[in-house]
Order: sequence, then structure tokens, then C-alpha cells
Amino acid sequence: MRVVTTGTELLADALGAQAVATERVDWRPPVTAAGSDVVTDLARVALDPRRADANRRAVDAVLGVTAHLVDVGPASEVLGLERGEFLHAGPPIDWERASGPLRGALMGGAALEGLVDDPEDAPALFADGGSVSLEPCHHRGAVGPMAGVVTPSMWMWVLEDLETGRRTHCTLNEGLGKVLRYGAYGPDVLTRLRWMGDVLGPLLRSAVRRVRDAEGPVDVTGILTQMLQMGDEAHNRNRAGTLMTLRDLGPALVHAGEAGDVSDVLRFVGGNDHFFLNLAMPTCKLALDAARGIDGSTMVVAMARNGTDFGIQVAGTGDEWFTGPAQVADGLFLGDYGPDDANPDIGDSAITETAGIGGFAMATAPAIVRLVGGTVPDALATTRRMHEIALAENPRWTVPVLDFQGTPTGIDVTRVCRTGILPQINTGMAGAVAGVGQVGAGLVTPPAEIFPAALARLAELAAR
Amino acid sequence: MRVVTTGTELLADALGAQAVATERVDWRPPVTAAGSDVVTDLARVALDPRRADANRRAVDAVLGVTAHLVDVGPASEVLGLERGEFLHAGPPIDWERASGPLRGALMGGAALEGLVDDPEDAPALFADGGSVSLEPCHHRGAVGPMAGVVTPSMWMWVLEDLETGRRTHCTLNEGLGKVLRYGAYGPDVLTRLRWMGDVLGPLLRSAVRRVRDAEGPVDVTGILTQMLQMGDEAHNRNRAGTLMTLRDLGPALVHAGEAGDVSDVLRFVGGNDHFFLNLAMPTCKLALDAARGIDGSTMVVAMARNGTDFGIQVAGTGDEWFTGPAQVADGLFLGDYGPDDANPDIGDSAITETAGIGGFAMATAPAIVRLVGGTVPDALATTRRMHEIALAENPRWTVPVLDFQGTPTGIDVTRVCRTGILPQINTGMAGAVAGVGQVGAGLVTPPAEIFPAALARLAELAAR
Repeated sequence: MRVVTTGTELLADALGAQAVATERVDWRPPVTAAGSDVVTDLARVALDPRRADANRRAVDAVLGVTAHLVDVGPASEVLGLERGEFLHAGPPIDWERASGPLRGALMGGAALEGLVDDPEDAPALFADGGSVSLEPCHHRGAVGPMAGVVTPSMWMWVLEDLETGRRTHCTLNEGLGKVLRYGAYGPDVLTRLRWMGDVLGPLLRSAVRRVRDAEGPVDVTGILTQMLQMGDEAHNRNRAGTLMTLRDLGPALVHAGEAGDVSDVLRFVGGNDHFFLNLAMPTCKLALDAARGIDGSTMVVAMARNGTDFGIQVAGTGDEWFTGPAQVADGLFLGDYGPDDANPDIGDSAITETAGIGGFAMATAPAIVRLVGGTVPDALATTRRMHEIALAENPRWTVPVLDFQGTPTGIDVTRVCRTGILPQINTGMAGAVAGVGQVGAGLVTPPAEIFPAALARLAELAAR
Repeated sequence: MRVVTTGTELLADALGAQAVATERVDWRPPVTAAGSDVVTDLARVALDPRRADANRRAVDAVLGVTAHLVDVGPASEVLGLERGEFLHAGPPIDWERASGPLRGALMGGAALEGLVDDPEDAPALFADGGSVSLEPCHHRGAVGPMAGVVTPSMWMWVLEDLETGRRTHCTLNEGLGKVLRYGAYGPDVLTRLRWMGDVLGPLLRSAVRRVRDAEGPVDVTGILTQMLQMGDEAHNRNRAGTLMTLRDLGPALVHAGEAGDVSDVLRFVGGNDHFFLNLAMPTCKLALDAARGIDGSTMVVAMARNGTDFGIQVAGTGDEWFTGPAQVADGLFLGDYGPDDANPDIGDSAITETAGIGGFAMATAPAIVRLVGGTVPDALATTRRMHEIALAENPRWTVPVLDFQGTPTGIDVTRVCRTGILPQINTGMAGAVAGVGQVGAGLVTPPAEIFPAALARLAELAAR
């Protein structure tokens, strides 16, 4: 016999005293949203005869993908991004509604591409809109951390599912502090980006191709397996992943350029514990993209924020975004910054949580509470709680301290609506004002109402 | 009010029901040994007026040491080791009583030094003894994993306490499987050792010196701080430490030799997750040596095994070894090997446990149970149990999952004798027959009787 109890502790205590195995869960009433009838929608989706099989196929598809690192190249080449085209994180947005850090990153990107000489001249360019366009990274097979701005000259990792040839992409990580993705666009930021285009990108391309051709491409999904045994949750702790990237590319990098440049590249990568984030993100997207378009599936395939809106996409609802206002994270601040300085949640990096790591795997990375706040028991409890809204466990990504339980995989819109438990994201915080950069890191959830909105659409589409 | 309960669970339960804070401890009767009166000795040592202060000074001395990587060089140079001198792990032993793996390593070492052409001719050399000598690593400021054999041509890490100039040393790690330290001595083993002397050692020396002179020497104690947040306990998991060593030396290594050799060195180090063990061990010895010779202190400053005997040295008893028979570990075996193939416990690597990591820090490295056996709850419980026999916690070496509690530091002979809790060591297992190599990994403790023996000597030396 197995009993699940909620609310009435007395009942659980009495059962426990009688040696009945009892699982205590944190139940809340279903979430609601204006204009939707969650209970009716839940019933309709629950009765969709396609649902169980569709979710099984979605889970199998996600868990079946192995991401290999096959190339590195400029976005102009690997994404066909053209002059004046700008990608950004999150669901679609225009300049007018763009937040400070997204504006700052776009301004820096415009200067990097030579569209303006001075980043301060860029707002007029974007406000006019004639010669430039904004588009979500997710619409072009890419993901971008924080502002997520991609311009044609930026070099990108290329990850591939070798079985299908599907690919995903992400820029190279700049480091922390005053960097473009946090909305900074000063001369140092642009100088670093130019070095990344002139030296870092080409050397990494040479090394990635050399490894690929000699030994087969690096298995990035497999690196994530190891990271989760090494205190990384792969969103805000990527230290072990970064070091394993150095290990796997180092011997080939030595042959990729002159000693001075190779040494600089090793130092740059080794000095940036977040370098691997930009490999973790497209790995997660590559897996989740495998579940896109499975009719009847209630699995979330993307969570992304543009600094103004938080959006999700769901396997059974095609390319539609369900959006609501991005929240401000609760966490720890750098220096003298405080909550008033923080921009609302921004970035495609919540793709890690969508795939079951990041905030979902904090149990395996308890040291992260020193960065994002909270306590070690919180971190353990968070992973356990996320299992309540997940469809499956990932047998390749396990958490040793939870007795090697697989990470919670496949956020189920119906479970979120039924339990009121929202996905837990851990995140960096950008300054609200363009140009500031990072101000802290913390914990945040999506706006609750986007899940009933997605549920309502699933209910409309449900088979009868 | 705080109550410590033992044995009678009913008492603890009743106190708990009355909201009294209760700490349940696992009490056992004091250990005993033939010819010693543990109770009388405990009383005498407990009443030694120097004890509390001596142990405080011993703890402060150990915790005050920071180990810096200052050089790499052949043992002939950094230890003044001469032709025919062989160092080995553990307390003193002669050829006649040496176990299979120690004999195998000595035979390979003799061939490496050109004392014999064929390792199979070496036993006669050692049995005769005229032209060769055996001496513990610990007697020459060194530590050696497993057989721990050091010969003059082997290159060694040199660690220094910059405040005092004290140094410790350890060979470079060969990797796993058929390697000299596990008693293998085939042609592959010797070829690898020659490459380590010709290429690996000189390139590492160049890199270590370049880093030392340009940025200051690498802080190895600090790397251990990070490792403990990355799933390494630094005895049988050294993966993160190895990667951080690559990170810290990589940029300088690029300038240390031609690209082919640099690439080979990066690949060799990156392919051996245990490479850092040989840095962790001398770091621990450097710290513990600071407590040697503190009269009245009951702190263990070395635990070491030669494959036949397990020995400890204690701060308050000078250079005396207290020895008993080494035990066979209980664990997991490689391939078709089983318990009958395993040699008793061997190696100086228990210096890690003596310093509070390794088996003492398994809580921070739960993935290790897949290597050494046991369960994740066992790993957590082991670290908690080791605190019961330790004098202090290390504020620099903390365990995130235990809410950043410091590692249990300074094994107290009196606590071991009083509680019957023996230090928990995790270890590799060598094949009992010379030449076999590694057969598994597991968990082991010292022979219980060496602690009452040390206690008896402390009692003799106690001030009245």
C-alpha cells in the first residue's frame, strides 16, 4: 500500500505511526487565469485520447537525442544571418517594448557590425526600424543567454543530432560583469567581442574540426552527465563543464594557432566558469526541439524571456508563444546593487530548466546557494518538487546525492496547472538600465498565468 | 539543554517527544589491545595538562598551512635520492616482508634505473641488499600512492609552505590499470615512465616555473577547496582537481615545448582523472607535518601502509610508527577479479584521510559509491561519523551538502580509543601478485590495535 497525503499532517502522522508508506506532497489549488476555466480545460486535456501516447513519444524523443559539437562559425555562415538582422532572447519583441539590457546589447551589436560608429547612435536606427530587424533566437535554431543578441559576425557553437542532422547554435560566452549579454556596450565590451571573432572563434573552429575529424565530435550530452556529478547544474554553475571543454579541445587547440594565441584562448576559457553555459543551452534545445509539433503532447519545449515578456512553447501547440510579464528574480546582489536595479528576468537560458537541469537540478549543485541565495535544504527540496511537474526522469542525467535519481524531465502543462507548482529557474540578473551589466543572481519563476493559457489552447486542440 | 544519547533509543525518543534537543551517537566500548590497559591510559592522557593546548596548537598548525606548487624535478635533484636508493609507501619494511605489489614496483624501478636489464632479475638484487636500500617516503619528505616506489630518475611535484619554506614531494601520476604503483612492471609500464621522465616532467617543470615567476605559484590548498564543491573527495575522485591543474598550467604549458609534446601532455593529464591525487597527497602531508613533534598532542599526523603493515605516527610521539597488519579492503572489483586477488591495503594515500578528506569527505562526493561500493546514505553518514573522532573542522575545506560544514580534521587517538570508531579510508586495491596491477577499489580501516598502542606511548610520555 502507498498513500499520498496533502494538507492534513495529522493523517500522514497517523499513517506513519501505523507503518504505512506515506508520500507527503505540497498540494495547492489549480492555478487560474482571467478568461480561462482551468478545471474544464484540465478535464478536456486529460480526456484527450492522444495525450498519454503523445507525451510518451515526446519524452522518448527528448531523451533520445545526443548533442555533438560539430563546428564553430560566424552567424553569417552557420545561420545565414544577414547585415541588419539581429537575434534576441525570448519571445518576439520590438524596440519600443525592449528592456534596458536588451536595448544595450542591441546598441553594442549595431556598433560591432559597423551599422553605427557610436552605440549611442543606435537607438535611432532601431526606432526607425527600416534597415534592421529583430527576431527571436529560437526562430532561427539558436538560443542566447540573457539579452541573447546575435549579429552576423558573432561566432557560434554548432551542435548536431547525428541521427537526424538537426542542429542548434549559440554564441561563445564572453565572461561575467560588463558584457554584451547583460546589456553593457562600452569599448571594452566591443574590443573583447572583436577578439572573440578574430582569435577565439577561428581557433575553436580549428580545434573542434580537428577533434571531430580525428576522434569523432565531442559528446556534449555526455559532458553534462559528468557535470551533474561534479556540482554543476549547468545554468549558473558550469565550472566542471568548462574545464571538460578545455580538456577535450586543449590538445587540438595547441595545433590551431601560434603559441601566444593558443595560450590566450586557454586562459580566456579557463578564466570564465560560465563558458560552458553556451554549450549546455543548445544541447538542451537540441533535445527539446525533438518533441516540437507532437500533437496532443502537453510537454513544454521552450521557456524563454526577452526581459519584458516570459514565453513558453508547448509540444502540442506548434510555434505559438504563451506569454506574460517577466518577473524580477529574488536573490543576491553584486556590490551595492539591490532589487531596484534589477531588470525583469531575461534570456533563453531557461531552456536548461525546460530540459530538467539548472534550477531543476539544484540538488546536485548545493554550492550554488552561495550565488543565487536560499539554503542547501531548499536546493534539495527544489529538485524533489520539480519531479511533481515533470513527465519523466532522465536516465543519463542523474543526481548522486538523491541516490542517482534522474533529473526531472519534460514539464507537463497539466501538472503545473493542477498542482500550482511553477518551474524553478535560477538566473543571472541584468541591470535594468542599458549599459550597466550584471547586478546579481537569484531565483525566479514564470508568470503563473501562461500555463492556463497554454492549457486552454491544448483544450481547444484536444481530440474528442 | 542538550542531551547526547547512546544505545537506548527509547530514552532519545522520549526526550525528542518533550522537545529536548538530542544528539544520538554511535557509542561502542573502548578498543582494547593485548598488553595495554586502555582505560588507564585514557585517564592518564586525559589528565595530561598539556593535552588541550597541544591539540589546539596542532590543529592551528595544520589549518594554517597553504601548499603552493613551486617546482617539478627528478628525485635525484629535489630529494637528493642516489642510485640504489628506493623509497616506498608506508612504515619501514624490508624485501623479505614486502607484498607482491611493492615487490613488483621495486622490480620495475630497478629496471627503470638500469640496475637490472630485466625486472625479473631484480629480486636477487633486493634479496642480497648490498647495493640497494629501502626507505619510507615519509622519512624523506615525500608521499607515494599505492606501492609508492620512488627512484632517482622519477620526476616529482614540489610543494612548499611559503611561510616556513617547508617542502613535500610526490611523483607524477601514471594513470590507472597496469602501472608501477599497483605493482605492474611490464614493458608498457617502463616505456610510460621513461616518457614521463623525458617529456612530461620537463614540460611540467617549465610550466610550473613560468606560472610561479609570472603570477605566483598555484595554490593547491585552494584547488582542494574548489574540488570539495565539485564532487571530488581527493583520494579516489580527483577529476575536478585534475581539470583545474590543466586550467592553471595549460596557458604556460603551451610555451614549454613543441606543439606535439604539449598536445601529448595535455592529452595524458586530461585522460587520467587521478592525476591530481599526487598533488593532493603532498598538500595533506605539508599541512600535517606542521603538527609533528608537538609534545602532548594526541593528533595523528600520518597513516600509511606498505602492503603488509599499516602504520600511524602521532604528533606527541615523534617519529615512532605504531603498526599492525594491513587489512584487505571491502569493495568493487574490476573484470573477473575478486577478494582473493586483492593485496592488503597499501600506499601513503591515507594521508588524505589523515588530513580530513578522502574517506572523511565522502559526503561531498556521493558519486564515489559507484567506484568503492556502499550507498549514498553511507557516504553521508561516514563523514558525519568521522567528526566524532576529529579534533576540529576545516573552515577552508567545506562540504556544501552538509550545509558547508568543514571537513573533520585532526584524528584524535583518544577519541578513536574511547569510541571504537576507526578512521574510514577509501582506496584502490592492488593485485596481490607482483605484476598484476589494479584489481578494484573499496573501503578499509586501520587495524584497531594500533590506536591503543599509540595511546599507551602517549600515556608513558604524559606529564604528571
